[in-house]
Amino acid sequence: MNSALETTQLKDIVAHAKEYGFVFQSSEIYDGLAAVYDYGPNGVELKNNLKRLWWETMTQLHHDVVGIDAAIFMAPQTWEASGHVAGFNDPLIDNLDSKKRYRADVLVEEKIVALQKEIEGLKFKQSIPNSIPDGTWNSYEDRISEAENMIGLLTTALQIGTPHSLSNAIKQANISEPGTGSTNWTEARQFNLMYSTQGSAIDADAPPVYLRPETAQGIFVNFLNVQKSARMKIPFGIAQIGKAFRNEIVARQFIFRMREFEQMEMQFFVRPGTEGEWYDTWKAARRRFHEALGLPADKLRFHDHDKLAHYAKAAVDIEYEFPFGFKEIEGIHSRSDFDLAQHQHLSRKKQQYFDNDVDPATGKPYGNYVPYVVETSVGADRLFLATLCQAFAEETITEGEGEAQQTKTRTVLRLHPALAPVKAAIFPLVRKDGLPEKAQAIFDDLRFDFRLVLEERDAIGKRYTRQDLIGTPFCIAVDHQTLEDDTVTVRDRDSREQVRMPIAELRRYISEAVSFRRIFEKL
Amino acid sequence: MNSALETTQLKDIVAHAKEYGFVFQSSEIYDGLAAVYDYGPNGVELKNNLKRLWWETMTQLHHDVVGIDAAIFMAPQTWEASGHVAGFNDPLIDNLDSKKRYRADVLVEEKIVALQKEIEGLKFKQSIPNSIPDGTWNSYEDRISEAENMIGLLTTALQIGTPHSLSNAIKQANISEPGTGSTNWTEARQFNLMYSTQGSAIDADAPPVYLRPETAQGIFVNFLNVQKSARMKIPFGIAQIGKAFRNEIVARQFIFRMREFEQMEMQFFVRPGTEGEWYDTWKAARRRFHEALGLPADKLRFHDHDKLAHYAKAAVDIEYEFPFGFKEIEGIHSRSDFDLAQHQHLSRKKQQYFDNDVDPATGKPYGNYVPYVVETSVGADRLFLATLCQAFAEETITEGEGEAQQTKTRTVLRLHPALAPVKAAIFPLVRKDGLPEKAQAIFDDLRFDFRLVLEERDAIGKRYTRQDLIGTPFCIAVDHQTLEDDTVTVRDRDSREQVRMPIAELRRYISEAVSFRRIFEKL
Repeated sequence: MNSALETTQLKDIVAHAKEYGFVFQSSEIYDGLAAVYDYGPNGVELKNNLKRLWWETMTQLHHDVVGIDAAIFMAPQTWEASGHVAGFNDPLIDNLDSKKRYRADVLVEEKIVALQKEIEGLKFKQSIPNSIPDGTWNSYEDRISEAENMIGLLTTALQIGTPHSLSNAIKQANISEPGTGSTNWTEARQFNLMYSTQGSAIDADAPPVYLRPETAQGIFVNFLNVQKSARMKIPFGIAQIGKAFRNEIVARQFIFRMREFEQMEMQFFVRPGTEGEWYDTWKAARRRFHEALGLPADKLRFHDHDKLAHYAKAAVDIEYEFPFGFKEIEGIHSRSDFDLAQHQHLSRKKQQYFDNDVDPATGKPYGNYVPYVVETSVGADRLFLATLCQAFAEETITEGEGEAQQTKTRTVLRLHPALAPVKAAIFPLVRKDGLPEKAQAIFDDLRFDFRLVLEERDAIGKRYTRQDLIGTPFCIAVDHQTLEDDTVTVRDRDSREQVRMPIAELRRYISEAVSFRRIFEKL
Repeated sequence: MNSALETTQLKDIVAHAKEYGFVFQSSEIYDGLAAVYDYGPNGVELKNNLKRLWWETMTQLHHDVVGIDAAIFMAPQTWEASGHVAGFNDPLIDNLDSKKRYRADVLVEEKIVALQKEIEGLKFKQSIPNSIPDGTWNSYEDRISEAENMIGLLTTALQIGTPHSLSNAIKQANISEPGTGSTNWTEARQFNLMYSTQGSAIDADAPPVYLRPETAQGIFVNFLNVQKSARMKIPFGIAQIGKAFRNEIVARQFIFRMREFEQMEMQFFVRPGTEGEWYDTWKAARRRFHEALGLPADKLRFHDHDKLAHYAKAAVDIEYEFPFGFKEIEGIHSRSDFDLAQHQHLSRKKQQYFDNDVDPATGKPYGNYVPYVVETSVGADRLFLATLCQAFAEETITEGEGEAQQTKTRTVLRLHPALAPVKAAIFPLVRKDGLPEKAQAIFDDLRFDFRLVLEERDAIGKRYTRQDLIGTPFCIAVDHQTLEDDTVTVRDRDSREQVRMPIAELRRYISEAVSFRRIFEKL
């Protein structure tokens, strides 16, 4: 895919999201806060619909999954147990001339790409012998060999990954600051990605409290509280939606990577030895979810992790093809008993479950164990962005007939009706003759069931266009005939066709289209 | 009300909330984090129901209110404009012996209460002349007079409210540390209640970012983005639900005052001069909301603020009678144009609206102005606690007939069915004869519509009891007759009566009871 096209497409989404009230830059009147965004009137409805769909899919459709909502603030020990205090770092390096800070590993990666391009260019020239002045062939060979050696050195440094190895690599490869060319670097050092804040108002010596960098630990520390209070039997899951925070140095691609973001996570607790089948089950179930809400199969793919954490049994990402390429929207991870065992160790409180089920091998109950965990973790903002990108369509349409026929372009959000921010817009054809009052009466009758828009201003065509832009599946026009026979026209967003129906039919007609049921049936 | 009784009642709620999966202490396995709590499986459902009820009441029932979801992180200037950087302080004082920190104003308030009690005691003794030894009457008079003077001095210090005045008052009244009696105090100083965290990963000199202490400012900074993108005409409102954080030194009463909490706020933007009528309208509407969801009229009251902020036109709390007394669950505030004008001033970006409506006084459009704001602000956690306290009932019931009749006590959560975490529980009478499979089939048929529990274990009476404890309105029993005629018994939580009905009727029967419609109709 062409790089210029990619940029343009994401830019279109960003512009549309702002103009039509989906996503605003945070604190925009103060020139924004980097990598933080606010959801506008249509954005919050779309996001809430996605969150509710996920929540009900998890906690309502499965009798063996329950939810929780743990606080963002957690005891500092949590992040020692999870490994985040020691290991959740980026290697950062400062340029002493510009005073700017960079990720050392990213500088090295970018250098590798630059060297690969240089080699390609040199080899291309070699393939056209005339382009090379006599007697310089060897210098080309030397440079290619030198660049290849350097790539090897840099790749090794990345694999080692320590600040020291990265610093050395940056020196040896003479990597300079983008833009300025300065090579005046500090040593790289590890920089923890967790945000921290005051631990206490009354004790200045209290350790800082972190803003959780993931929601999962809120589930792990509550494992026994949930299991006991809800009387859950293994296997069972705990689902949670909530904010997490990471002090990312490289935050880009709109809401794809933010410093404040929202996760939808479910930890499924299983008997050790059964994690493989549950991993496969959830992997398939989670992919069906994304397809059911409207992400097409050919824009989704599984991507197995190249490297696994030492405790992990298996890990796969579900990737969606964004305008900027295939990127993760959800991860499914077989995490063994790592987290519960760590918490058991640090808190000195048993994190065990007594399994009454009989082991056929021994004829006795399985007894006490620390359960294994299969995790499914969706980025709510990423799913929002995928849904928005997928729905965004610019299409050529033909209007009118015969000589009046004309072709034009329209932008439409083809959101699944169950996810659309507004389910129906109600338009009195004119602002007189009692039509606004009739429209208001329809609004009042349907408002208990659906989020509606009531819009009197502008020509009806313009009003249809505006609803297409925010993905409203139905537009209900109230005209003079309505006053006579209590019928209205209902325009379909996608086909643009209008059908006339009795007002009394509207509730059932809209309900059937916008119900989650249509998505649930595909799961 | 008796103080011991109060304590017992809140303790009952706290214990019930933990045991039945409503609220857990945060990070309990690490001995908890002060004044932070997690919502368990039933708590999160009750809280989500309350949030959705508020959200739909605001954004779905009113065509002139739309929602947003602004980030917790905002530009630091926001809190300069709002006055929080300069003025959102508590006066704190340290005891040098114990190294403990106290709110200076609370120490003074408690001293006033102690002096008042002393005076009462002395006057009571004076009313029984025999109780006073001869010749000591005057010393009683002196002490009363001395205490009254001291109360006057302390009250003045509280009114001035500066750290200096409070420090002086603590010295003059010789106020000692509770428990130790130490009077070895530092000077009091202002302590800002906002939490702060790293402003940037790449710029160590960047100012810190605050965790928002209220959600309202996320609405104000987005005023024009929302108004333009959603084409709103004044008057209109913007609603938001989200977390806020305050580093409270005195955090108590369970989830009533937490360091991390959730607000449900709606800012209604109006033409200056109309704020009085809108204030009255929202004040009445908001009280109806609380009554409609089940808080009885005699446990709700309005409490006008004694002191108004300098910019405020009017302010009232809606208070609910908790076991620890009448306390605020929602505030309604007429805030003038203070916030928008402050942001306009600091951001140098006009926060104006052009009002096309014609002013009858001039015959011309009202034109440009900075709108006035009427705010409604609910504490989501407080509403949750009020709902839980109100629902919690211990009652004496009679079971059986004739000689088998017996009286016992049951605990039941009389939650509004629309708010109940679980809408119906499905029980196969026995774990054989195909009854579990039949129960599962009913679960599968209803799960798209309601959150259900499927429970096979224990005697049916015990299962009913457990559902009473979490407020489930209906229990569906599957028995042998079910296999013959596809009917089940449905037990009502409140009346404990059972009716037999066809399985095919269940969806409609439950729907009618648990729909928000029944609440909406009362608004």
